[in-house]
Amino acid sequence: MTTLGSPLSEARQVTDVASIGERALIDRIRRKLPPAPPSVVVGIGDDAAVAVMDRGAMQVLTTDALVEGVHFDRRFSTAADIGYKALAVNVSDVAAMGGVPRFALLSLMLPPTLPLDDVDGLIEGLSEIAKQTGVVLVGGNITRSPGPLVVDVTVIGAVKPRRILTRNGGRAGDDIYVSGTVGAAAAGLAWLKENPLGPSDLPHDPAMADCVRRHRRPEPRTRLGMLLGRTKAASSCMDLSDGLADAVRQIADASGTGAIIDGSRVPISEAAAAWFSSRGVDPIVASLSGGDDYELVFTLRSRSRGRLRLIERQARGVTLTKIGELTEDPAVVVHRHGAIEPLPHGFVHF
Amino acid sequence: MTTLGSPLSEARQVTDVASIGERALIDRIRRKLPPAPPSVVVGIGDDAAVAVMDRGAMQVLTTDALVEGVHFDRRFSTAADIGYKALAVNVSDVAAMGGVPRFALLSLMLPPTLPLDDVDGLIEGLSEIAKQTGVVLVGGNITRSPGPLVVDVTVIGAVKPRRILTRNGGRAGDDIYVSGTVGAAAAGLAWLKENPLGPSDLPHDPAMADCVRRHRRPEPRTRLGMLLGRTKAASSCMDLSDGLADAVRQIADASGTGAIIDGSRVPISEAAAAWFSSRGVDPIVASLSGGDDYELVFTLRSRSRGRLRLIERQARGVTLTKIGELTEDPAVVVHRHGAIEPLPHGFVHF
Repeated sequence: MTTLGSPLSEARQVTDVASIGERALIDRIRRKLPPAPPSVVVGIGDDAAVAVMDRGAMQVLTTDALVEGVHFDRRFSTAADIGYKALAVNVSDVAAMGGVPRFALLSLMLPPTLPLDDVDGLIEGLSEIAKQTGVVLVGGNITRSPGPLVVDVTVIGAVKPRRILTRNGGRAGDDIYVSGTVGAAAAGLAWLKENPLGPSDLPHDPAMADCVRRHRRPEPRTRLGMLLGRTKAASSCMDLSDGLADAVRQIADASGTGAIIDGSRVPISEAAAAWFSSRGVDPIVASLSGGDDYELVFTLRSRSRGRLRLIERQARGVTLTKIGELTEDPAVVVHRHGAIEPLPHGFVHF
Repeated sequence: MTTLGSPLSEARQVTDVASIGERALIDRIRRKLPPAPPSVVVGIGDDAAVAVMDRGAMQVLTTDALVEGVHFDRRFSTAADIGYKALAVNVSDVAAMGGVPRFALLSLMLPPTLPLDDVDGLIEGLSEIAKQTGVVLVGGNITRSPGPLVVDVTVIGAVKPRRILTRNGGRAGDDIYVSGTVGAAAAGLAWLKENPLGPSDLPHDPAMADCVRRHRRPEPRTRLGMLLGRTKAASSCMDLSDGLADAVRQIADASGTGAIIDGSRVPISEAAAAWFSSRGVDPIVASLSGGDDYELVFTLRSRSRGRLRLIERQARGVTLTKIGELTEDPAVVVHRHGAIEPLPHGFVHF
């Protein structure tokens, strides 16, 4: 697309984005990608990509942007981390629908002074998680940004009609489960804000290093989402992008129920709990309201408990923890220290 | 997704984006949209959308962002124009592949001070072209922007395998055609830069008003693209987002040919020609290198000329003009005033 006119005309070194044109950048990216599989009929470089979808499947469509200064800080994450996370958060959304991620489009908005090495890094990180999750980058768009670096990704997935997981299928009495542990990503980010480190450096403490890693490179629960859809075990599902409290509230709202969470059962990351406690922050409140965990929360009818044990065996080490249940009463609450409290709202900023 | 922490905490009026949350904004947008058709199984409000694709079709996937200060200026275009254009440019890419646009995802990056009225306007403009082109907005993402307003759109279309139009199918001897006229959008933008007007005002001169309209609201050649694919008339095709010279060069490069354009045949918008001449700018150079026309350029084997006449009758008033041909000689040139010149590069900034 034609631009309104660039204010950048100073001589530049051939090491930043402004020093080469859009076409050269696209070629540079294309050279870093693996050859396209046969499902991609037209790949990068035409007006649009053309791809073959799974026979009998519906399309799962999602888009999510990472904006510098809002979702990431280049002091805390490398370009590769940012590219990785930009695709991972979209793959997580497809997993939460019970779908299998297939194709991705990448829309980059690049500040002119961004080093070309960082573009390479973005693509390397994105390619790493693409390979892990079977996603093919089929196209995209590059434009100059007069403001922040933006990495906007769209993922197109496939799902069989009877395997779709939505937020609104829960019923009062369904158990609420969450995968993995919560709070680690929020603790990792909080730690980085207090402890200046290079973007590729990790804390010496291995437990805190794991929290920082989870902030930088969340692992989408692709296999679990697929299993929950395929076995029809879950009555509802969503991912934890905005925190566990938010997810439980969303599922309860969409399902027309309330929910009660047992505070003592929430699988808080041990390192996160220790970090929050050391800062005088209640670990349960922080872990319920902290986001970026990208675990799945889902509900289960009591008759599906047998299927859940099957899923646990196939989920390759991802733990599944019952944390509460949906209720007739429309309140969304947490039970802790013998008292009932409303679930905390949103993200706690430290 | 959790944000790194918002610097915005001042009291605000309930008239800008920062005054209401992401969820309230999504609800506000959803209320402005028409009810989803049966092809949308899960619409706005879940982790991802789920949609049914045309049976036997392949997916056409494209994304394109409009960035404030790069692709639009809020002094020149209303929010509705920006929403309209953000979808139109993506629909144009699908048309250039011979596809039919079906679904759209909208990724918005909104400055906190953006008036809510402008969000409404964006959605109204986008909805207008969505309705015209049969596209359904099925989902998206909203985030705060610490910089420019960004409207990033993904369109998912459908195309039958034998109807795909690519850039690389041309052969030496194929005629080169362009739809409609060129230069008007570039002239309209140049005019706006010299003549301060309100973003919804138009020049008094009807011909120049038309140029400004074409800059603000390009009309994607959806029907023509579909006809060119369906009849298998075109050997290659692309849209004119970056100008006619660029498009001819891209097709020749991808097809492994050269091209010669007859300067006297290029269908320059009369108003644009008059405007460029009055500014001492060569109208042909300006129209070949000016972008944002969103016409289609395509090539045609001589045996397909009969089919072209059929298409012209069905194209509802869109003119098709032969402007040159692909050549064995790899040079990409324009023939004018009895001389052969290389085609101008890129966009001329006025």
